[in-house]
Formats: sequence, C-alpha cells, structure tokens
Amino acid sequence: MLITDNSLVSLKPIQQSVQVTFNYDVHFTHGLFELDNPLLAEVIAGNGEITPKKVLAVVDAGLLKDHQGLVKKISNYARFYEDIINLIEQPIIIPGGELVKNNPKFVEQIHQLIDAGGICRHSYVLAIGGGAFLDMVGYAAATAHRGIRLLRVPTTVLAQNDSGVGVKNGINAFGKKNFIGTFAPPYAVLNDLDFLTSLDDRDWRSGIAEAVKVALIKDADFFHFIRIYAEELASRDMKFMENVIYRCAQLHLEHIANSGDPFEKGSSRPLDFGHWAAHKLEQITDYKLRHGEAVAIGIALDSTYAYLIGLLSQSEWQNILVTLKQLGFTLYLPALTEKLEQPNHPHNLFTGLTEFREHLGGKLTITLLQGIGQGIEVNQVDLSIYKQAVYMLRDWL
Amino acid sequence: MLITDNSLVSLKPIQQSVQVTFNYDVHFTHGLFELDNPLLAEVIAGNGEITPKKVLAVVDAGLLKDHQGLVKKISNYARFYEDIINLIEQPIIIPGGELVKNNPKFVEQIHQLIDAGGICRHSYVLAIGGGAFLDMVGYAAATAHRGIRLLRVPTTVLAQNDSGVGVKNGINAFGKKNFIGTFAPPYAVLNDLDFLTSLDDRDWRSGIAEAVKVALIKDADFFHFIRIYAEELASRDMKFMENVIYRCAQLHLEHIANSGDPFEKGSSRPLDFGHWAAHKLEQITDYKLRHGEAVAIGIALDSTYAYLIGLLSQSEWQNILVTLKQLGFTLYLPALTEKLEQPNHPHNLFTGLTEFREHLGGKLTITLLQGIGQGIEVNQVDLSIYKQAVYMLRDWL
Repeated sequence: MLITDNSLVSLKPIQQSVQVTFNYDVHFTHGLFELDNPLLAEVIAGNGEITPKKVLAVVDAGLLKDHQGLVKKISNYARFYEDIINLIEQPIIIPGGELVKNNPKFVEQIHQLIDAGGICRHSYVLAIGGGAFLDMVGYAAATAHRGIRLLRVPTTVLAQNDSGVGVKNGINAFGKKNFIGTFAPPYAVLNDLDFLTSLDDRDWRSGIAEAVKVALIKDADFFHFIRIYAEELASRDMKFMENVIYRCAQLHLEHIANSGDPFEKGSSRPLDFGHWAAHKLEQITDYKLRHGEAVAIGIALDSTYAYLIGLLSQSEWQNILVTLKQLGFTLYLPALTEKLEQPNHPHNLFTGLTEFREHLGGKLTITLLQGIGQGIEVNQVDLSIYKQAVYMLRDWL
Repeated sequence: MLITDNSLVSLKPIQQSVQVTFNYDVHFTHGLFELDNPLLAEVIAGNGEITPKKVLAVVDAGLLKDHQGLVKKISNYARFYEDIINLIEQPIIIPGGELVKNNPKFVEQIHQLIDAGGICRHSYVLAIGGGAFLDMVGYAAATAHRGIRLLRVPTTVLAQNDSGVGVKNGINAFGKKNFIGTFAPPYAVLNDLDFLTSLDDRDWRSGIAEAVKVALIKDADFFHFIRIYAEELASRDMKFMENVIYRCAQLHLEHIANSGDPFEKGSSRPLDFGHWAAHKLEQITDYKLRHGEAVAIGIALDSTYAYLIGLLSQSEWQNILVTLKQLGFTLYLPALTEKLEQPNHPHNLFTGLTEFREHLGGKLTITLLQGIGQGIEVNQVDLSIYKQAVYMLRDWL
C-alpha cells in the first residue's frame, strides 16, 4: 500500500498505455453461398470455439433484383452447415445505398434484432451488400454490446477494394457524411467476386476510382496497369477487374497496417486524396452522384491543381485525366461551379475544405501528387488557383 | 503488378494485422478550475499543437447544488487561459445519474453541439460529472467524427477510481445496461479530489465497493488496508479515501494495460467480479440502487457462493461481509429473493447470469475468489447452491 503512518499518497499521474491488436483476414472467393464452398463456415467456426455460433444475416435490398434466390441460398447454406451456423432468423432485408446512412432508424432496427436474437460479442453479424450498407450495418454492430463480430461480404467493386476492407463505419448526420461512426475492424471480410457481374455500369465503374486513387498516391506500376487496360476495365473484363480489386485492397490494407495511425488520430490522411471535393459533391448532389463518381472528379480536380502549382508535369496530368475518361468517368458537373462565386453558400465547393478539416481535425491536410505514384501532403491551398482548376476541368476536352 | 500474360491473380487471403496504441494520463489534483492550477490548460495544450483549442464543456447538473459557481468558474478558467482554451460556448448543463443513459436524446444533444461548434477530432469534449454521466458523454464523443478527444473529470469516488479511468463508454437500451457503447480510451483523466467532499453519503460509500472488488481479486494488502480503515472510510476521512482511490485506479489501469485483452474480445472478465448480480439488481430496482451499492451486494453474494463451494474459508468469507458492513453497505434487499422461485420471470435474479453472458459473449465466465486477493474464473455455477447463498445473505446478521 501507498500509505505509511498516515502520510498522504503522492498524487503522481498514472501514465496509461493500452495496446490493442486487431487481426482479420480478407478472403477472395467465388460462389460464397454455394454448399460446396466451406469458406464462410470455416471463418464462422473460428478457432476451436464452441459451435454452432449465432449469426444474424442482413442483406442489402438492392441485391435482390439480380439475386432473387439469395435469401434462400443463405438459409440453405446455414442449414447445410448447421453444426457451425445458427442463423437466428431468416436473413433480414434492409435498403442499401447512401440513403440508408441518412436515417438512424436502420441502426436502431439492427440493434433491436441483435437484442431480440441474443446476439453476443462472440456471435456474428453477417452483412451482405454495398459500401454504404456495410458502413451502416458495421456501425450498428460496433456499438451493440460494445462490438459484435462483423463479417463483411462486400458486393460492389468499391466495397471490395476499399471501404469494405478497412476499419471504419459510419452514418450521416446534420447533412454531413459519416458524421457519426467509429473505428472498428471487422472480424473478417469475404469478397465474392461473382457479385460484381450483376452490378450496373455505374457501380462497376465507380469502384475503379478508388483503385486509381491509391495507385496514383502509392504505386506507379499499378496506375500503369489501369491506364493500359482502361478499355478492358470499362468493357467489364472480369479478369482485369479481379486484379484491380486485389491490388487495390492490398494497398489499402498495407496502408492501414503500416501508416502508424490506423485510427487517424493525427491530421494526415493520404488515402483521402481527391476526397474533400468528392464528399462535398456527394452532399451537393444529394448523394445522387455515386461515391466513386465523385472521387473521380475529386482526383481530376486535385490533379489539375497539382499541375497548376507545378507538382505534376503536363503529360502526367493529361495521363490521369485521359485514364479517368477512358474508364468512363465524367470529370465535370455544373454543381462544381454553380455557387463558386458565393463563398458562404453551403453549396460552394470550397466549403468542402472546411468540412474536411473539421471531420479530420487539426490543421488542413490534403494529399496532392508530386508525380504518378507519389502522394504529397499540403497544409494550405490557394483558392484562386483551385478556382482556375475547376474552370479548366469544365473546359477540358 | 500481379497479372502477367493475363494469368489470373491467385486469390490468396490477405492477412491483416492492425496495431493501435492508446496513451493517456490519469491526473490527481485539487482545485482543478482554480486559476493558479495550470494542469487542465497544460493537458489541453497538448504536445506542440496549435492553440487555442476548441473545447466543449459539459457539466453534470447534479453538481450544481453544491457547486453553484462551477459553470462560472470554468468560464473564468477558460478566459484566463484563452491562449490555450477556446470554450466554444458556455458550459452545457445536462442531467447526471443512471437515468441519463436511458434516453438517447442526450447523446443526440451532444452530437448537435459538436456539429454546431465545429468541434473536430483534435478538439476536446470536457466532461465533468459522475460515472453514468461520463459514460453517456463519452459515447457521444466517441461516435462524433469517429472520436473527439475526451477529457474526463470524474466527480464521484466510483468514477475517479473505476469507470472514469477505463476504456469504456455506453448507454442503456432495451432495458439493458450498456447495451450500446464502444471501447474508446479518453484523451486524459483529471481527478479533482475536492469534488468528493460534497458527495452525499451514499455516493461516497458507493465508490468504495469497486475498491473492495479489485482488492479482493488482485491485492490482499489493499483489502487489508480497507478492512482496518473501514471506519475511517465510512466516516469520510479524506486522507484514507485518497489512498483508496489512487490504488484502486492504479489496479484497474494495470489490469487494462496488461490483461492482453483491453477491448474484451475474449470471455474473461475478472474485473467484473460481483457484477452479474449487480447489473441485474440495478435493473430490477429501476436503477434506484447505486451501482456501487449493487456491487457490494454482488460481492457479498459471490463471496458467499465461493465459501459454500469451498473456495473461501469461513473466516475469509466473514471478513469480506464484515468489511462491507462496516463500510456501511446493505448486503440484502428483498429484490434478491422476490422472484427467485420463478425461473422465467424477468426479475428473477439468475436471469442476470444469462444477460451477463450475452453481453460479454461466448461461454459463461464469472470471477469468484479462491482467497483474499485471488480471483478465479469459473465457467459453470450450481444454481441451487447460489440460491442457498442468497438466503444465507438474507439471514446473515
């Protein structure tokens, strides 16, 4: 004990250091719910834990149009592997898309299902759907009992190569994207590439934007690959897409593991290249623009700015814009310029810089490029040059 | 790149490992908001960051009766240290006590204030109040922008030596304590011991229960200290209380740092000794029982059970009950036995075991004692003996 002879304790501060390690595997497969594919059952079985394990399956309603049999397939799979999987009820259908993040009732619905099903921290929420859907379900899972194990089955390119493999979740509030959320690594990610064949062209293309982004800031060879196979990717060649998804996921995962700041306590956010404008554009267009479509414009805009301030050569800059164009992206929208001369209008593009800084915290830090494959962080920008970049995009080509 | 000659990528799983380190200091002081105490300003200044920093101060309404000047004092402190502290508005008053965790509107209110004030991840929420209040504010801070820096100023014994120094937050839902919450270490904890002088006797005493608990499972010398000074502690001798708080906080912090499972992914939960019954009793009594009062009963019950199954000697068992009694705790309530013969009644005490297991996840794991200062985990219990223990408590003394 500290006290002797009733002398007062010395009130020295106690310095606490808590280290937490999160391990999770990102799997790539075909036919995840085919009975002869044991992957999901193996993942759920865990490591010598008592089975069967309770599982709450939640399915993105957007999938049902092209996958009518999905709910039945999941139930059949669970029945086939009943020694391992105890599906607490029929898979639940919940809307997908960004709008599902705007209404807190969906999070509440999942909390209710977790409560009613007696789902505990060693049980699973199995979430099957697009990136926004996974963000919302992930937030619900992360906050029930301070964290239910989350199995993500991302069904879009964007979710398979980017948002679905990372450590974030969230919903929107106060008109701001991801205002509410947590950092919470999944228990595992199961990328079933078969889901991609049924994507519409916009969603197929949209996910490639994050691959272009991570290639531009980290891996010139990867950008070269995307550039030379842009036509094949645009025309939906699955072979090339698999490569793009795998490498993009890998680069994202390496960054999260090795950045030294996986839960983003600092101001640096290199993976958010092109994202300040993208988030703002999604908001201005009331989320009619897909995230990846907005990111493509954000990349084009920030690359143009980087060219204007001398960080990129003209040929590098053109290379980027041409590649995005060949992939099928539109690089200009009227929303970019409509309120550009009204600095205080909430739809002024540059208010996105303030919102971006507030969300990240600390001083403004955005990532630009100083070459293909080489991101660079800057802490201030010249708005008059940025304005010029916007108009150049409008007039390009 | 992975592809050569259009050969398919090998879809090997990517094994991700994310390590996160959380550092925070737990300070002990007197007169935290006195102008000549620079501690709070120093903590807010951070490590070479740009100041002043935005701060949203939130105050537990329960403090105002005995600390009428508190809000003004905080404002004055901020004005005095204006180079460092930018109080975005007058400190906000929000109710305290367990009931504040039952209504989600308080979390929403804090989210609104964070949004309206442009509070970012590098700004601070300064929360001043009791344990339940800090749990609720902490949850709001942890989920806005995926985590605003939280400065906890715990004002009760329980919060200063236990809940306020740990890594959890939460609110109640579906009638279940902490059903919703996250693991989120604070930025810093500032224990101002002066707040304890104005506690009512129940709150003063209540916090000692967690000290008894951690002493019983980890530190026989500490239990010995509490036992011999039980009268002094009961009669509110601050000198002894400071020792109890410091040592109890230290033991909790050491456990969190060294347990190997700070975010409780496994089933083991030694710090929850006495807590399965405590949580249930709080629920049955509609939170009229203080948490510490419930924990004291839980400790008495689990110690009696440990005695009955031969883990504790009679003198050890008596020592525990006598100490709790001397500290002023009531060790029996009619709520313990009222529905004991109705296994499925929601107010049956033993339904607390199931709820406890569900909250923790995995197999039932409760901590008992195999001697003073020596916790031991068990995975099954004999309900008929537990029932006997309940009736022994009723009839004891």
